[in-house]
Amino acid sequence: MGALRLSSLSLVRPTFSPLRRLAPLSGGRATSSAASTHSIAKEAEAVTAGDGKASASPLLECAVTPRSVDFSKWYLNVIDKAELADYGPVSGTMVIRPYGYAIWEAIQDYLNVKFKETGHSNMYFPQLIPYSFIEKEASHVEGFSPELAVVTIGGGKELEEKLVVRPTSETIVNHMFTQWIHSYRDLPLMINQWANVTRWEMRTKPFVRTLEFLWQEGHTAHATFEEAEKEALQMINVYKDFAYEQAAVPVITGRKSKAETFAGATCTYTIEAMMGDKRALQAGTSHNLGQNFSHAFKTQFMDENGERQHVWQTSWAVSTRFVGGIIMTHGDDTGLMLPPRIAPIQVVIVPIWNKSDEKTSVLEAVATVHNILKEAGIRVKVDDSEQRKPGWKFNFWEMKGVPLRLEIGPRDVTKKSVVVSRRDVPGKPGKEFGVSMEASILVNHVKLRLEEIQAALLQRAISFRDCNIVDVSSYGELKEAIAEGKWARGPWSASDAEELKVKEETTATLRCFPFEQPEGEKKCFMTGKPAEEVAIFAKSY
Amino acid sequence: MGALRLSSLSLVRPTFSPLRRLAPLSGGRATSSAASTHSIAKEAEAVTAGDGKASASPLLECAVTPRSVDFSKWYLNVIDKAELADYGPVSGTMVIRPYGYAIWEAIQDYLNVKFKETGHSNMYFPQLIPYSFIEKEASHVEGFSPELAVVTIGGGKELEEKLVVRPTSETIVNHMFTQWIHSYRDLPLMINQWANVTRWEMRTKPFVRTLEFLWQEGHTAHATFEEAEKEALQMINVYKDFAYEQAAVPVITGRKSKAETFAGATCTYTIEAMMGDKRALQAGTSHNLGQNFSHAFKTQFMDENGERQHVWQTSWAVSTRFVGGIIMTHGDDTGLMLPPRIAPIQVVIVPIWNKSDEKTSVLEAVATVHNILKEAGIRVKVDDSEQRKPGWKFNFWEMKGVPLRLEIGPRDVTKKSVVVSRRDVPGKPGKEFGVSMEASILVNHVKLRLEEIQAALLQRAISFRDCNIVDVSSYGELKEAIAEGKWARGPWSASDAEELKVKEETTATLRCFPFEQPEGEKKCFMTGKPAEEVAIFAKSY
Repeated sequence: MGALRLSSLSLVRPTFSPLRRLAPLSGGRATSSAASTHSIAKEAEAVTAGDGKASASPLLECAVTPRSVDFSKWYLNVIDKAELADYGPVSGTMVIRPYGYAIWEAIQDYLNVKFKETGHSNMYFPQLIPYSFIEKEASHVEGFSPELAVVTIGGGKELEEKLVVRPTSETIVNHMFTQWIHSYRDLPLMINQWANVTRWEMRTKPFVRTLEFLWQEGHTAHATFEEAEKEALQMINVYKDFAYEQAAVPVITGRKSKAETFAGATCTYTIEAMMGDKRALQAGTSHNLGQNFSHAFKTQFMDENGERQHVWQTSWAVSTRFVGGIIMTHGDDTGLMLPPRIAPIQVVIVPIWNKSDEKTSVLEAVATVHNILKEAGIRVKVDDSEQRKPGWKFNFWEMKGVPLRLEIGPRDVTKKSVVVSRRDVPGKPGKEFGVSMEASILVNHVKLRLEEIQAALLQRAISFRDCNIVDVSSYGELKEAIAEGKWARGPWSASDAEELKVKEETTATLRCFPFEQPEGEKKCFMTGKPAEEVAIFAKSY
Repeated sequence: MGALRLSSLSLVRPTFSPLRRLAPLSGGRATSSAASTHSIAKEAEAVTAGDGKASASPLLECAVTPRSVDFSKWYLNVIDKAELADYGPVSGTMVIRPYGYAIWEAIQDYLNVKFKETGHSNMYFPQLIPYSFIEKEASHVEGFSPELAVVTIGGGKELEEKLVVRPTSETIVNHMFTQWIHSYRDLPLMINQWANVTRWEMRTKPFVRTLEFLWQEGHTAHATFEEAEKEALQMINVYKDFAYEQAAVPVITGRKSKAETFAGATCTYTIEAMMGDKRALQAGTSHNLGQNFSHAFKTQFMDENGERQHVWQTSWAVSTRFVGGIIMTHGDDTGLMLPPRIAPIQVVIVPIWNKSDEKTSVLEAVATVHNILKEAGIRVKVDDSEQRKPGWKFNFWEMKGVPLRLEIGPRDVTKKSVVVSRRDVPGKPGKEFGVSMEASILVNHVKLRLEEIQAALLQRAISFRDCNIVDVSSYGELKEAIAEGKWARGPWSASDAEELKVKEETTATLRCFPFEQPEGEKKCFMTGKPAEEVAIFAKSY
């Protein structure tokens, strides 16, 4: 049995898709050339074959490209090998596979409850929007018109008015709100929808930026600016809490600069996450829309004094992009690493036997342990397939990022104990032998370990983030920090033009003015003039 | 207090949308004339204004059109006044409002668990499908091409290949299955997706037939015909169980005729429900696709003998149409009537007081009862708004179909009891006075009543259905039954041409060959030749 308990790093991994042929690497550019069978696996294989470094080691031949060698290739490898997603036939689209979708479901389950607790109702708006709607709000059309998918034929006929496949729903929501809102008594109106949206993106990347993606979009209407502002802040905090407490992603919450504000909003709040390659990922946004859309769509109400007023609005969204954020925050060279609270499988049990006479007793013990954990509400899976050896299974479930593995062999059965291995602590230090099978002991032990892993993942990500944010007091320092791939944080009160200059010269963008601000007087690192706030600049996805 | 407890029929109802103007009645025809503010309320008002019978009674002026006067108008009235849905700006589209969406969520919650229990995983496929995919399966393209919405412009450019907004996903699913399935070990592959689909329907009706609708579509691949057949039957039974046990809709399960089989399937199973106007509603289908799509898309696997075989497939779907089925099965002239198991609100509590000194004690008691029921897992709502009188609230929540109403007034507080009213039993017979507020007594009482209502709704629908199915043994008898608006059931072994003749002459279609068949020898009522099965014919939605 001991021989089977090799560290996963010394095992040769088979490729998971032996039938897939090598294909030329595609840049993932969205075009209309359809019907390709371009797969993430093929892209990853092409990558490995063409990369001397990655294929030099027999180990790496079949595992993922190390993060340090090429983070993008590592990301695609993990998505393929952990079976999270695949490319759709239309370039830029993505098929979300069951394991990837289960992570999205965990995100949905948490947020859906929070949205209802904070007074929102789910509903559903049609995805086809008259083209003229998009044109009603000036900055909205400017922001979205280059990205639209347009339906021009319906039921075999050319349409009189072209229809847009929703890129977001502010316009159609306002069209309906205008019909439903009459009096101050109809306010606040607070709704949410879970939906697909389509944006014709040119540079796509699975989960992070795809031609179609899944999201929730909240839309609210209020009687006053203050109420809308409170709502916009409330929702960005709901997202922040989700990120920290469930996904163990230590986002930085803040306000977007004018240049980076949502097309049609007066103010955008954001949660920004640092990925494993130190790039920033905008992981969720909440907009105070002011009265921009209510003016465009004449969404008015009679106030308590009988005066007609335009409503104040918000909208806020989190999308399947967050799944990409989780992968890129926690994953390592062994594959995906999932925080227990959102892991579709929290514990995998791998039975181990050599001789067939050991099998019955091992499988009996496995079934008992499985039931004990399941009844305790732990998401547990038994991998008792006989086609694969335990070592293969260890690697496979590590690739899938399952937080905890239990191994049960004949000796464990005799001792009425199990071996427990943590995904986040490789090798011996992460392994515990002789953990009792007795129900209450085992359940407590597993629950404790899961909580420890949850906390450890968050702590590790916080340390990583904080080590990679540099406080800068000059443009030179910013350039240096960005050149090192880090985030730069410094006082900022310069112009939009100077913000653009930073972007053009460093490719870093102003991610946000963080809510948490240092005390004391500040001078803009660009202009030397007084600044009220520090801003964070970083390269981003 | 007694005066406030009038039967709802004697109260004048205010219109719910006083600001809406009268608009010409639209047939709900799907066109591309967008940006209308055509609402269900307007349609309903136009109906009422133009209908001497309906506006003759002061009661009906503000309530719904009676079912017996005009079932279609009644249906639109209920959808409007119970706030279930509204028309979208593009003709033929529908906005599902929070209360209507909550019914859909109840359907999702139940089915989602059943799908997982039966071994299916959720995932997500892109909605944009290359036009060429649709053309690969001959009968599929024939069935769907007249209904397609086509994207021809993306990111500001004319696309090289037109893209179809999915009307269903068999083609794209098979494209991906072909990449994922290699060996018999990859089978069965059993997935489901919750998604929106778009079909350019010409005659639309909220929930029942809309240009875009929400549904789940299951897709499975198997090694043998028998396995696929077993799966197709399993899923139609999951739907049947949902219909009976949750929605209290006593569907008839059966097999479609060749003419009515899904475009691309070898066999379609269906659940057919009888609506309140005796029309049939196809409420869910499950298809044995045979090898039609696997041949078209070359979806093959290596069997245990090393031979390449085409997979055998199924697909099955239930949509937001089912919400329409629930409305039309249980609703009455007072509005919607919801089976407790799928009711978003199972119990509404209406506090009643006349003098302000009664208010505190009444609201305290209401809060206590609210908590007691909530903690018992009952979906309960308090309507303590002071803008409306209790009588108005009674009507409103009856319109919304809430199964049980609790009334609590000063006398109830003194007696530590509540008044309980059943939605399904109007007037005095449905009212119980003096039901104890004591937690365990009240909870048991409420739970018992909810179960009784659930059972009563099902029983009533079964009786209605069985009274309106006529066994026929000649074409003349069929014509008579159909002319009376009933369903006709009789032995059938005639040709497709004769089936078409029935449709053309009576507008009734062959709904299904029911699984439950009478014993004994049968002679086709059309041809007099021997028949193996009876079939059901009916007018349908």
